[in-house]
Amino acid sequence: MRDVADRAGVSPTTASFVLGGRDMRISEETRQRVLRTARELDYRPNLMARSLRTQETRTIGLVADTIATGHYGGELIRGALTAALRHGYRLLVCESEGDPALEATLVEDLVGRQVNGLVLATTSHDRVTAPRNTAGLPVVLLNCRSDADLPSIVPDEEEGGRAAATLLVEAGHRDRIWMVGETPERSLPGSGRRRGVVACLAEVGVEVEREISCPWWPEGAFDELSSVLADGHRPGAIICLNDRIALGVTQALAAAGLVVPTDVSLVSFDDSELAAWLRPSLTSIALPEREMGRLAIESLLSPEPTPALQQVHMPVRVRDSIGPPPG
Amino acid sequence: MRDVADRAGVSPTTASFVLGGRDMRISEETRQRVLRTARELDYRPNLMARSLRTQETRTIGLVADTIATGHYGGELIRGALTAALRHGYRLLVCESEGDPALEATLVEDLVGRQVNGLVLATTSHDRVTAPRNTAGLPVVLLNCRSDADLPSIVPDEEEGGRAAATLLVEAGHRDRIWMVGETPERSLPGSGRRRGVVACLAEVGVEVEREISCPWWPEGAFDELSSVLADGHRPGAIICLNDRIALGVTQALAAAGLVVPTDVSLVSFDDSELAAWLRPSLTSIALPEREMGRLAIESLLSPEPTPALQQVHMPVRVRDSIGPPPG
Repeated sequence: MRDVADRAGVSPTTASFVLGGRDMRISEETRQRVLRTARELDYRPNLMARSLRTQETRTIGLVADTIATGHYGGELIRGALTAALRHGYRLLVCESEGDPALEATLVEDLVGRQVNGLVLATTSHDRVTAPRNTAGLPVVLLNCRSDADLPSIVPDEEEGGRAAATLLVEAGHRDRIWMVGETPERSLPGSGRRRGVVACLAEVGVEVEREISCPWWPEGAFDELSSVLADGHRPGAIICLNDRIALGVTQALAAAGLVVPTDVSLVSFDDSELAAWLRPSLTSIALPEREMGRLAIESLLSPEPTPALQQVHMPVRVRDSIGPPPG
Repeated sequence: MRDVADRAGVSPTTASFVLGGRDMRISEETRQRVLRTARELDYRPNLMARSLRTQETRTIGLVADTIATGHYGGELIRGALTAALRHGYRLLVCESEGDPALEATLVEDLVGRQVNGLVLATTSHDRVTAPRNTAGLPVVLLNCRSDADLPSIVPDEEEGGRAAATLLVEAGHRDRIWMVGETPERSLPGSGRRRGVVACLAEVGVEVEREISCPWWPEGAFDELSSVLADGHRPGAIICLNDRIALGVTQALAAAGLVVPTDVSLVSFDDSELAAWLRPSLTSIALPEREMGRLAIESLLSPEPTPALQQVHMPVRVRDSIGPPPG
């Protein structure tokens, strides 16, 4: 802190006010200079030290865009709750509905409640703009990343994509491998998984034969795949970019009289409950939501600096949807 | 408070300590007498008045057995979060994992954090033992009920059962109506829905032809129904006691070559995402989770006494799974 003050040419008190986010009528120019210097010097307030100085609330604020929608998000929060509990912390949980203005209000309120740190979470792996009014509190991004220099916990989508492709390659699939899902660059799960699939297949000289683009829901997958099947095309294996798409895919295959895995092998992502419920049950690359929630809290409370980006392993859940290539 | 003290034969200070949950070495006998008297006089601490006396944290503690598992629970918390936000409150959210000892610890911690009230929630509509250490704080049970005299917000399962049966009756179904699910008395959703179905059908002189008992998961429903179908029995309509069971039922019907709704009509409960995703999409009686979450917070913050048991309307979501009886 003293280094920051010296280098920014302000008193330690002023630096402390700025980095503590307290509005003491410090000029915007000075404020920016202190913040810039703090970034240059890689100054991170030490949570443990802070706790000794300030009122120890042992509370962490969690602001999510959405709390658990359908299969997603619930386990992120459970992982965070369990880890917080283990450290004697409680979570103040808020939902911003993805509204930046509401998010800013919630963050301001949590800062006023003297939380010891903030977790900003999204239900889907996404890019976000980090809020500016976090008042120097430790902040961790959960299932999202930003341009700001904040620790970020996300799934390792690309490694997951490699795992899915590896399962098909190991089962002997080399051609008529299709992919169904949403893969534009702005979709971090879709584009990451696709990169891993393409890279892994390239290593054995194989290409994805057909990419069918549709949003993350069963209906679109059903319609798009049904239309391709109606033209007489036949896949040997389909990589479904999530389980909801896999549901639409299985419905379209069944409607076309194709049997999984005898006629077509399937592999999917997320390992939501659906994967276990479909018949045959789906081999799926799991979203490590609970582990990510845990890591967010551990990173926040760690006295050591944590890596800026932690990409968390997506475990493989092998079930009954992959067979050898059709004869 | 003075009335309670007078009638219990203790000083107002003692009564205040007991009802405020503060352990001032008051004998267990006296404590019990004060609590009993408070119950007899229907004494409820007024939250608003309390806020003026004590530190106003504008925080509500929510202790759930599980935060959002699969399709369930997330909307309860979202409803509570949104309502709390509207009133300027924040939620401290905890998960007890259904462990009474952990629940007691969490409640004690929340009381120590001077929350203004407590919501105790379960992911499935259930009967619970209310914690004893709530220190006189206002408490609302969300999606559960207890023997204690606490306001309780639950789905109106029986009315939901009537709604499901009414849909079939109105479509012309009179015989070969089957029911699949878990209906023992200890299952509040199953037994409540069943009561509504049976009562509604009785009014038009109809009985459920066959009850197939299985747990709340697709696998069991698939196995049990498949075995009955293999014996040559055929339903005209099936009341599935939740959407997960409906998934297993549709899988068993498809495997037996039966088409929904031409051969068999289906109606289900919960209106989870599955209901919209199945083909044909399922008519389902919705769990009003978000509305229940909202009501829990409104009841907690209401200066007026609220009814002990609020049974919340289950809305009907009509989709494509009900047709006329097979010819």
